[in-house]
Amino acid sequence: DILDNPIGTAPGTMLEAEGTLFFCMPGVPRELVKMMDEQVLPRIAARREIKSYSRARLLRTFGIGESNLDEMLQGVPLDAGVELGFRTAFPDNYVRPVARGASAAEAETRLEAACGKLREALGPLCYGEGDETLEVATGVLLRERGVTVAVAESCTGGLVGSRLTAVPGSSAYFLGGIMAYANEAKQQLLGVPADLLAAYGAVSEPVAVAMAEGARERLGADLAVSTTGISGPGGGSEEKPVGLVYVGFADASGGQARRIHFPIDRERHRQMTTQVALDWIRRHLLGVPFELPRIGRRQ
Amino acid sequence: DILDNPIGTAPGTMLEAEGTLFFCMPGVPRELVKMMDEQVLPRIAARREIKSYSRARLLRTFGIGESNLDEMLQGVPLDAGVELGFRTAFPDNYVRPVARGASAAEAETRLEAACGKLREALGPLCYGEGDETLEVATGVLLRERGVTVAVAESCTGGLVGSRLTAVPGSSAYFLGGIMAYANEAKQQLLGVPADLLAAYGAVSEPVAVAMAEGARERLGADLAVSTTGISGPGGGSEEKPVGLVYVGFADASGGQARRIHFPIDRERHRQMTTQVALDWIRRHLLGVPFELPRIGRRQ
Repeated sequence: DILDNPIGTAPGTMLEAEGTLFFCMPGVPRELVKMMDEQVLPRIAARREIKSYSRARLLRTFGIGESNLDEMLQGVPLDAGVELGFRTAFPDNYVRPVARGASAAEAETRLEAACGKLREALGPLCYGEGDETLEVATGVLLRERGVTVAVAESCTGGLVGSRLTAVPGSSAYFLGGIMAYANEAKQQLLGVPADLLAAYGAVSEPVAVAMAEGARERLGADLAVSTTGISGPGGGSEEKPVGLVYVGFADASGGQARRIHFPIDRERHRQMTTQVALDWIRRHLLGVPFELPRIGRRQ
Repeated sequence: DILDNPIGTAPGTMLEAEGTLFFCMPGVPRELVKMMDEQVLPRIAARREIKSYSRARLLRTFGIGESNLDEMLQGVPLDAGVELGFRTAFPDNYVRPVARGASAAEAETRLEAACGKLREALGPLCYGEGDETLEVATGVLLRERGVTVAVAESCTGGLVGSRLTAVPGSSAYFLGGIMAYANEAKQQLLGVPADLLAAYGAVSEPVAVAMAEGARERLGADLAVSTTGISGPGGGSEEKPVGLVYVGFADASGGQARRIHFPIDRERHRQMTTQVALDWIRRHLLGVPFELPRIGRRQ
């Protein structure tokens, strides 16, 4: 059998020998994944007598470590036939309920009930399901509520903006932002007072607040978030160690900032800081208090 | 045997049974990779009689498709004992020469000679080796030449800045930038004239030039790059289709922009546009002409 490849030039093939199916597919990952779903799995399913059905879903959480998450969900009364899996995808942690049943409908009903109980237990720690990233979940809320957002980024250098704009249609709520890496940029593009920078340093609560307020005002946005920190590996001091970061938030009622210390490598420090900034927007729109992530140090 | 895990809590184990070695390691990718290098491979090597040695290196290229790259290198006279592998890592393509020899020194000498010939044939298409990303290679040139850079990003929304600042010490040359997603942001934060936006639209050559010039001036940088395009999936028209993008560049002698059409998905459109902007900076610093990527449409 020739296996059709709708998004590339090389087709796949299926060979059957002595009751065994052999599949050959192109190595380009996007093509392989699509053909696996559309060509291979249905052919295998068609030959198999199915005795039990399973349905699974991914619940995405941010702000809680894998072991705390496991503990937190121990007390949730799940039906027999539902099992939980856990997976870390830094900076997030995923819970994956798998429900089994004698029919697809029974499995689906069990899964639905389990997801309801799990989401109730998780509260705002769970931001989405499946491939719904934090920027997608945040974007849905921004769009629904007609709220616009701006960013002021120092240590993340554009990561928060790039995440928000990864979502198609984000121009409906993302106005823009300022990457204020140099102190002069913080002063001139965001209006951070020079005496604030001199008195507290760029990595400080007052500067994070002034950055968020400056971005909100200059972009004419409803909300703004800011980041200023020391992602390392250099640049730390005893008073301000590598991993220290302030995340700021501003809306019509004023600005505030939170101090966080993530002693991890540069890349993950920037990812974690970005996730905190996005989560602050999401929690604000949900009307729940902002919470610092409770992340274990295991890794 | 217990296998030491220097960066996590769970150790690994090695079991030998009937001449076969079994290794168990923690599943956390960073821990597994480190332990593979430090614990597993040396134990395997110690038991193996080595008859031939091989040495390999990764040459990273941008701006040429995989099949063109293969063709281009057909004519390079390589020693016997040297083979080339090719790998696509969108938007880049890698060449991997593998050299064999009767001793490690012989393999290394062959590899060195092969890399010299390959880099000569590739010219500026090869920007780095091993894990040297385009932002690292560009950063090295910026630092060596004492040149500062700023960015003005529309469709990439912060990706160019986030790539430049992924490099430790980038504050030596990256001053900052502006994510000008909304037209008002292009006017107010970059000084793009309203009549230019009205006459040509945000996705146009004159606006890309004005964005780069505006970022350069407002950040006080030596160089600036800009991006404005339609990454899709929506927002296209007959005249300005999805995938159209202008990348701009400005230095002391003025600004210019290039029109490019990449008919690919949103995520890869933004990645490709970012790579073009970084490559323009690199080529400018090397004193070689900027060239649009010649990328095949195979995928």
